[in-house]
Amino acid sequence: MAPPVKNAVRAAAAPTEEWSSQPEVTAAHPPKNAAGDGDRRPISTVLIIIAMQTEALPLVNKFHLSEDIDGSLFPKGVPWVRYHGIYKELHINLVWTGKDSILGVDSIGTISASLVSYASIQALKPDLIINAGTAGGFKAKGACVADVYLVSNVAFHDRRIPIHVIFFCVNYLYGIGARQTFSTPNLIDELNLKVGKLSTGDSLDMSPQDEVLILANDAVVKDMEGAAVAYVADLLSVPAIFIKAVTNTVDGQKSIAEEFLQNLIAVCTTLAQTVSQVVDFISGVYQIIGIRKSTSVYRKLYINTDEYYILKIMYQFA
Amino acid sequence: MAPPVKNAVRAAAAPTEEWSSQPEVTAAHPPKNAAGDGDRRPISTVLIIIAMQTEALPLVNKFHLSEDIDGSLFPKGVPWVRYHGIYKELHINLVWTGKDSILGVDSIGTISASLVSYASIQALKPDLIINAGTAGGFKAKGACVADVYLVSNVAFHDRRIPIHVIFFCVNYLYGIGARQTFSTPNLIDELNLKVGKLSTGDSLDMSPQDEVLILANDAVVKDMEGAAVAYVADLLSVPAIFIKAVTNTVDGQKSIAEEFLQNLIAVCTTLAQTVSQVVDFISGVYQIIGIRKSTSVYRKLYINTDEYYILKIMYQFA
Repeated sequence: MAPPVKNAVRAAAAPTEEWSSQPEVTAAHPPKNAAGDGDRRPISTVLIIIAMQTEALPLVNKFHLSEDIDGSLFPKGVPWVRYHGIYKELHINLVWTGKDSILGVDSIGTISASLVSYASIQALKPDLIINAGTAGGFKAKGACVADVYLVSNVAFHDRRIPIHVIFFCVNYLYGIGARQTFSTPNLIDELNLKVGKLSTGDSLDMSPQDEVLILANDAVVKDMEGAAVAYVADLLSVPAIFIKAVTNTVDGQKSIAEEFLQNLIAVCTTLAQTVSQVVDFISGVYQIIGIRKSTSVYRKLYINTDEYYILKIMYQFA
Repeated sequence: MAPPVKNAVRAAAAPTEEWSSQPEVTAAHPPKNAAGDGDRRPISTVLIIIAMQTEALPLVNKFHLSEDIDGSLFPKGVPWVRYHGIYKELHINLVWTGKDSILGVDSIGTISASLVSYASIQALKPDLIINAGTAGGFKAKGACVADVYLVSNVAFHDRRIPIHVIFFCVNYLYGIGARQTFSTPNLIDELNLKVGKLSTGDSLDMSPQDEVLILANDAVVKDMEGAAVAYVADLLSVPAIFIKAVTNTVDGQKSIAEEFLQNLIAVCTTLAQTVSQVVDFISGVYQIIGIRKSTSVYRKLYINTDEYYILKIMYQFA
């Protein structure tokens, strides 16, 4: 057992090359302001993006966040709401997409999620995004109500662009927008999280055309925001993770809308517990470590939440 | 015939109450910086939002716009491209959503369109948005290839949110996102434009579920960006008009993708001609005049493009 280390350099050695969780489709996520800190800048500012008030409030309470009431962060007219505070030395910002000003319902879906992601990244310069929310789950893939998934991959299932120029189907791939999320093997191990793929679309229900693409996306959960947040996070090179809690089964016998409403509040409590555990993990870990693509070498770094550390460095030569 | 009037106050009297083109769903669009100018501030900065390079280039050439190459307007990482210049005393900004950095195809669809709208409005503070682009047309509603429509209403057809809490279906209405566009009766009369409703979705094709909602939206044209641009323009209270040129029929016998590709270049030339006429009209008119909701009084104001004016003031008491 090593002595306590608090806010010190905790990593023995960090990769010096490109850090990436998304080797095929997306850009690398180099840590910001890495100069002088050997690419090992700790996570300081966390941005939690949430689409529903019912999903947001348990976390606002858990982290004792205050609502930003001066309204200066976002332009006049937008319904977006920011809550913020310090929790275990992390700057926590929770941004909820807010209520539609005319209809009074949560601003769910990909457009609001992408706008809030963009505006919040510009305003807050987060080190990490957590998109937390509820989702439908696929029984056939093993998902049950109240399961919480850390998402490994995202894609869209309602953006069909079948323009094939000669042998290329790049428009089709653009529509699907498949990307790996930021890789967090230590987080998954530490919290023993379920891991699965997420498919995103702007409808709560599932049409036969949606179903074809959801199956092609190999999704275990289906939401209305994730892939949009991932798209913006990638554009602006901010690492993003996705935590999705299952309110309803999509391939079950019950009505999706009824099951969703029936389980929403209880599942949001479960979601908040998992997000809280993830934030606790982040607060105790120097860095959620990525994968260095070029050599298949990666290093695992665990810091437990009691501020004692267990350091494991593992090399895997492919 | 009255004498030439150039950059002078051309309106006899403008409405003093709320200006709105969207009486049911969306917020009013008061002219910006109206104080001291009697709500009659002329249009100075025009923002043209375009999703495809093929749609953008004829307009870049027509207006002799220069590409913004210093890259300071938008954050690093985004593919968005701004062209700008002065045309007939108007500051013209054309923002194209750019090419996907990995796949090299146009960043079409609602997410990119909404992000570009938001970022461009924030950066450029336009007086008017013109969303110009190609669209599918419905033969059953009278649309033919190469027709150009000025859009009266927008809505989505792929955001199905069937959550009905008690007797309310507000989530469903939020998903549909129906709104009237900025009202421009004088522009329509002057240019003898076709007028119709637009339905927006993220797919080039049309599923049976899409078709049901497109019919419910009473759409004559179908695109992949319009309603998203309208949503953002409404949030930020910027008047927006939508000019859509028909590349293909959606309810015809031909393949949508094939017909789209076959007609794209020719129709983009036609689109550019109409957008150019609209900008010419704007350059000669003091203000695209809205409708004063409260009394059903409206005033028509024509200024011809030779800088002579014909002034008509018409009162209609309902």
